[in-house]
Amino acid sequence: MSDLDPPVTAVADAVRRALAEDQGILGDITSIATVPDNAVGRGVFASRSEGVMAGTRCATEVYAQLDSAVSVEWQVQDGEDAEAGAPLGIVEGPVRALLGGERTALNFLSHLSGVATTTRRFVRSARGRVRIRDTRKTIPGLRALQKAAVRAGGGFNHRESLSDAILIKDNHLVQLTLEAAVERARVRWPGRPIEVECDTVDQVSAARRADVDVVLLDNMTPTDVAGCVALLDGAALVEISGGIDIDTVTDYLSTGADYIAVGALTHSARALDVGLDLEAVS
Amino acid sequence: MSDLDPPVTAVADAVRRALAEDQGILGDITSIATVPDNAVGRGVFASRSEGVMAGTRCATEVYAQLDSAVSVEWQVQDGEDAEAGAPLGIVEGPVRALLGGERTALNFLSHLSGVATTTRRFVRSARGRVRIRDTRKTIPGLRALQKAAVRAGGGFNHRESLSDAILIKDNHLVQLTLEAAVERARVRWPGRPIEVECDTVDQVSAARRADVDVVLLDNMTPTDVAGCVALLDGAALVEISGGIDIDTVTDYLSTGADYIAVGALTHSARALDVGLDLEAVS
Amino acid sequence: MSDLDPPVTAVADAVRRALAEDQGILGDITSIATVPDNAVGRGVFASRSEGVMAGTRCATEVYAQLDSAVSVEWQVQDGEDAEAGAPLGIVEGPVRALLGGERTALNFLSHLSGVATTTRRFVRSARGRVRIRDTRKTIPGLRALQKAAVRAGGGFNHRESLSDAILIKDNHLVQLTLEAAVERARVRWPGRPIEVECDTVDQVSAARRADVDVVLLDNMTPTDVAGCVALLDGAALVEISGGIDIDTVTDYLSTGADYIAVGALTHSARALDVGLDLEAVS
Amino acid sequence: MSDLDPPVTAVADAVRRALAEDQGILGDITSIATVPDNAVGRGVFASRSEGVMAGTRCATEVYAQLDSAVSVEWQVQDGEDAEAGAPLGIVEGPVRALLGGERTALNFLSHLSGVATTTRRFVRSARGRVRIRDTRKTIPGLRALQKAAVRAGGGFNHRESLSDAILIKDNHLVQLTLEAAVERARVRWPGRPIEVECDTVDQVSAARRADVDVVLLDNMTPTDVAGCVALLDGAALVEISGGIDIDTVTDYLSTGADYIAVGALTHSARALDVGLDLEAVS
Amino acid sequence: MSDLDPPVTAVADAVRRALAEDQGILGDITSIATVPDNAVGRGVFASRSEGVMAGTRCATEVYAQLDSAVSVEWQVQDGEDAEAGAPLGIVEGPVRALLGGERTALNFLSHLSGVATTTRRFVRSARGRVRIRDTRKTIPGLRALQKAAVRAGGGFNHRESLSDAILIKDNHLVQLTLEAAVERARVRWPGRPIEVECDTVDQVSAARRADVDVVLLDNMTPTDVAGCVALLDGAALVEISGGIDIDTVTDYLSTGADYIAVGALTHSARALDVGLDLEAVS
Amino acid sequence: MSDLDPPVTAVADAVRRALAEDQGILGDITSIATVPDNAVGRGVFASRSEGVMAGTRCATEVYAQLDSAVSVEWQVQDGEDAEAGAPLGIVEGPVRALLGGERTALNFLSHLSGVATTTRRFVRSARGRVRIRDTRKTIPGLRALQKAAVRAGGGFNHRESLSDAILIKDNHLVQLTLEAAVERARVRWPGRPIEVECDTVDQVSAARRADVDVVLLDNMTPTDVAGCVALLDGAALVEISGGIDIDTVTDYLSTGADYIAVGALTHSARALDVGLDLEAVS
Repeated sequence: MSDLDPPVTAVADAVRRALAEDQGILGDITSIATVPDNAVGRGVFASRSEGVMAGTRCATEVYAQLDSAVSVEWQVQDGEDAEAGAPLGIVEGPVRALLGGERTALNFLSHLSGVATTTRRFVRSARGRVRIRDTRKTIPGLRALQKAAVRAGGGFNHRESLSDAILIKDNHLVQLTLEAAVERARVRWPGRPIEVECDTVDQVSAARRADVDVVLLDNMTPTDVAGCVALLDGAALVEISGGIDIDTVTDYLSTGADYIAVGALTHSARALDVGLDLEAVS
Repeated sequence: MSDLDPPVTAVADAVRRALAEDQGILGDITSIATVPDNAVGRGVFASRSEGVMAGTRCATEVYAQLDSAVSVEWQVQDGEDAEAGAPLGIVEGPVRALLGGERTALNFLSHLSGVATTTRRFVRSARGRVRIRDTRKTIPGLRALQKAAVRAGGGFNHRESLSDAILIKDNHLVQLTLEAAVERARVRWPGRPIEVECDTVDQVSAARRADVDVVLLDNMTPTDVAGCVALLDGAALVEISGGIDIDTVTDYLSTGADYIAVGALTHSARALDVGLDLEAVS
Repeated sequence: MSDLDPPVTAVADAVRRALAEDQGILGDITSIATVPDNAVGRGVFASRSEGVMAGTRCATEVYAQLDSAVSVEWQVQDGEDAEAGAPLGIVEGPVRALLGGERTALNFLSHLSGVATTTRRFVRSARGRVRIRDTRKTIPGLRALQKAAVRAGGGFNHRESLSDAILIKDNHLVQLTLEAAVERARVRWPGRPIEVECDTVDQVSAARRADVDVVLLDNMTPTDVAGCVALLDGAALVEISGGIDIDTVTDYLSTGADYIAVGALTHSARALDVGLDLEAVS
Repeated sequence: MSDLDPPVTAVADAVRRALAEDQGILGDITSIATVPDNAVGRGVFASRSEGVMAGTRCATEVYAQLDSAVSVEWQVQDGEDAEAGAPLGIVEGPVRALLGGERTALNFLSHLSGVATTTRRFVRSARGRVRIRDTRKTIPGLRALQKAAVRAGGGFNHRESLSDAILIKDNHLVQLTLEAAVERARVRWPGRPIEVECDTVDQVSAARRADVDVVLLDNMTPTDVAGCVALLDGAALVEISGGIDIDTVTDYLSTGADYIAVGALTHSARALDVGLDLEAVS
Repeated sequence: MSDLDPPVTAVADAVRRALAEDQGILGDITSIATVPDNAVGRGVFASRSEGVMAGTRCATEVYAQLDSAVSVEWQVQDGEDAEAGAPLGIVEGPVRALLGGERTALNFLSHLSGVATTTRRFVRSARGRVRIRDTRKTIPGLRALQKAAVRAGGGFNHRESLSDAILIKDNHLVQLTLEAAVERARVRWPGRPIEVECDTVDQVSAARRADVDVVLLDNMTPTDVAGCVALLDGAALVEISGGIDIDTVTDYLSTGADYIAVGALTHSARALDVGLDLEAVS
Repeated sequence: MSDLDPPVTAVADAVRRALAEDQGILGDITSIATVPDNAVGRGVFASRSEGVMAGTRCATEVYAQLDSAVSVEWQVQDGEDAEAGAPLGIVEGPVRALLGGERTALNFLSHLSGVATTTRRFVRSARGRVRIRDTRKTIPGLRALQKAAVRAGGGFNHRESLSDAILIKDNHLVQLTLEAAVERARVRWPGRPIEVECDTVDQVSAARRADVDVVLLDNMTPTDVAGCVALLDGAALVEISGGIDIDTVTDYLSTGADYIAVGALTHSARALDVGLDLEAVS
């Protein structure tokens, strides 16, 4: 268990569903028909382009569930750079099993490496001056895996669910002042971090008075963010969000903000184009 | 049940997992603390940008599972255009439930509408001269939902799993000629469609002799594709694949190919930015 | 809940799996393509031959899970006679849903009515002079449903699992006398019924001495069974088993045995040929 | 993975449910009470009558899930002949585990070998002149396992679910001509095989005009079938169905039909009477 | 959804398992045999002793899953006092269903009200001068339900899982100083609350220097606790634990500690003796 | 498999849920941050007080599911005495895994050993003159595990569910005499044990006439129990229940009753305080 791994329970469950989905009622009818039952071989995972590796635990689990005669070994670990064309990992065993699990394993690797790669790009743009955080805008059913991939890319994890931290948004303030809402949350759930979304300087002042842990500034210009950071003067951390992309990240590096929240890490990551090349069949 | 809906079994199951994931052990602690238990309200789903709607069944199911006091009605159905800012659907009921299900509902809507929107773009580029098809390169656990979203965008569904059709690739041909492989597949699984990936003109000729249903041309130039189409002369349908994007689609429109397979529809779709605006709380 | 119903938990779970199995990734592609979305109609379940009804709860649940717009009403209840050609039940609602659930509903009805019908035949042959009991030789995953169908046919349920009663067979006696085995079972699990399989008269005597509840006579002739019944003289109930079929049941009616155990009720029942006739589409 | 195996995902899941069903809350109370904890032994699977083996993967999985100290080895593989009395497979390990898993393992072996044996009988009657196919008339929850058993018997698999191929029946034609229905299906789901049920010669002509892949002739006499085959003249494959049994199969061998669809392979197969004989306990 | 409710997803899932467990293969065989199918009646939930109500959502869900003809209404809500003998809630419907769900509903009500009642006793002893918190020492599979019951009793929820907050114990410090451990945790998981278990005054000083959020003092005397509180001087909250029972709680009220963590709320709560009295059967 | 073990299916399933519950979305964030990935060590389970061991199968399974590199060995088996401070079992492997599974393993051990310990106390009070039995008053979802722990404590298992034995209570007799109810139950479910709850001497006489297997006397004084035992004169076994605690058990030892049913074994057992001490990290 590395800090870049998802919990084993999440891995086992996600792989079980994915395999059931792809094996269907009859299994891999093409390989069964065309590949001899006793053929064994070696497959090499390789990326068609540069990126950051993630999802190795899932790919290993795919083959563990499919056929215990398959062994999997990784040259590149989660969080490490995947160079275009270089071998990432090797699977050996019955060719029917190698091919039968290929697409399921690749779907995990490609998607999760895509998340890690996207995250790494943001992290690089941030040049260590602000932390890149994920959101709850995840693909349904894959949150634990995606959040691990964000860590593999160098990002940090925000809330895991509705249940672990307070985040007060405008929708919560329809009948309540910000300060009253913070007070209620603190009373009901003492000890949990409190973050408040602020759209105006007045709200930031209120958040400071309410002694919140984090202020979330949504859709503000760099200048406005810097103003809010100055206003808070260290009394709360500052997170910014709102369609910030890899290019505009740099505009915010001097604002003094602590975090940039990027939903796109998980909801819109391009897959990394990982493939499996079959070799040495006998 | 419209042809754009996923099976209800897939919807119920995916929503159950997604809700469990986001509610965690304590539930929506922010709304519980800040919103009165008896507050009722109305929320309006709206997209921040133009796109194609998908996922309404999932969003409806989210609220059905969460609180039967919530009603959901859609102004825009799956497959219809979502205009920027226009209301897509309305949820009414207890505000705590509206907010507690918001992110889960939006994650389905945003992702699946993203798939539909991406598909529609390809379909438009194809100008009716070639069909856009999905692949098995789907997000693990969401294949049924993603394939429905592809239909919502005007695309067509290729194989659902390894189990429903034959697709012979180079990895299957390590110890076998193409014709022998086709023959074996036909004998073992009579009646199932047979598609064969071809990299060379010789292989296309062999595929023609083997009387396959579809020839898959991977990474060929438009000129080469046109040559293969001519060679086949209607004896098999032609599918092309290999990193074709919205711009390069047009290069292939005159080749005579029948399908373009686009993995990116499902593995790399940008989410549509759908949000929920809360109104009329009382 | 009638005594002929399986537990609702078993019904809900079996239907969920069966529907997932038949809907696949795309759903009922034929009906979606050929039947208008707004067509509503009525379907009538009817049997092609005489039999005993069972499985109505499952068929009702199939439509409840598939589409709440479908209503189901039964003319013939579980345990009642299904006459050839007569209407058994009526489903009304969207035609796509009627057809999409048809095969799943029929698979439950046909199989379970087949179990009930087979049971009824044995029960009739037994003319009230011996009770027909099922066994644990059930189709994997369907035990609760099959045991309810046995009741619908007029049979009685033997053990539900390994866990609810003692049944000592020769395999348990490899290192132990029958009396010692009974004693151990009684000490470890006081209060649970004890049945012992006996192959010889000596074993029957031992079973009597051990004061068991039921003696199971496997593969004995009617004459031998009658001898064992006389020997036991009411000290234990007598169950007979071993490939007894509908014809040979009658040979055992005068033996004084209490039960005939028939594995074939559940492991080899012919399906009742139930179909769905679509009417009155509009 | 042989072509006669069901997907591992289906095996693992079906075994999990079957074991839970039979172990109940307390487990195998008889063996626990009567067999010493440290007794080890060997059990031999044998059939009481001739048949065709199927289900070995399931039986192996039963013991793998129950107790990793049990080893299982097969003398007869799926698809091979099981001679009456001959050893089919051997299990060795703790006697409590051998007995605790016995019935669950046998229920899989008996039912699935029954399916394979029934299939083989039809296949033999068909003398290689027509292919025997299964249907979707399967036992709920066991489709993947039953379809593998059909293959073990020498049969072929028809549709796996509603989702993988088009099959237009009279219920789909209530408001549509056959040709219009075919056209719609082809437009909506290009590339999928299209089969059409025909009751009359006119419909067969229409099917030919519509260029379908397979014509399904239900409840026709051999003479009528031969007529339709002649009419189609190779333009479509011909499948026949409708209560054809092992005796009447031969009536259709000269008709020129390509497939006979037999629901009874899966919905009404008699179990093969497989048992476990315990030996060599120490 | 009140703040005292567990998430609906947790309720539905726990009830599904509990019902399956109690219905077994045959269902409620006693009620089926002795109660007429058409008998309807009313049952009243009442506690045999004083306590605090919890678990009403679960009991309602039991009947919803079992039979939709049963209605459930509560006189006493979660978190309210249950007086001995007073009616807590009323169920009406088919008597077979009332009795078939009785034990499952009562098992939830008794256990969860037991947790709430135990919590309330601690809360009363604490006289508002310290908050009572639960722990992760919960009954496996019931954490969400137990944590809601703690809230119903007036307690507060500590961590939901290993995943939502940092809690550094001696086992984490085998190769690391406390300050180094805090630093690593802060770097890896910024923004999450950090609590550190301290056994000595030196460790408390180190925790202060490390600027942790909460200091956990395990098995300290009231005097020592007060000393640590003074030493921290508001720099961190103080939680105490270690076998504190209802009597010894009062010893700590003047120490200035903020929380008392009580594992016994969830791991050792006595059930509240709730029963169902059947009335007015017709 | 010992007679003190729960079925493996129940263990695997309960552990899966418990681990998922405690690992959450991110896993053990504290250990990941503070313990080196390559640290290996040994942990010793020990109880802080005397008790009876139970739950070792569950704790072993926790580590098996979490990390196959962890080995678990038990010094004290289920059913044996756990002395305060003495080592109960040893886990060795990666420290991150040891700590990540610690609380889940301990929650099983503490709760189930608590059940066993409570049972043992009752058994000792009973001095071999009456058997202590559990009830269906179990913690939802844990019945199989709790019933095994009752056996580990020397108690006996009553019904496993509603499905395996008849127990007629006053709620079943609203419209029926006791004798009529017994008759109906016997007719509907022949061969199953019949127990009847009796509140009066008249009912006991009726129960005797009805020839029931067990009479359940609820809330009777020892004198009244003795009178009923005399009245029955061996015609039925006698079980007593109704808030009998460890002290009052002795009042009933001379009554001649056969069983004392104690719901508190499972619904109100105090956890045994088991902990894990980490040693020898390297």
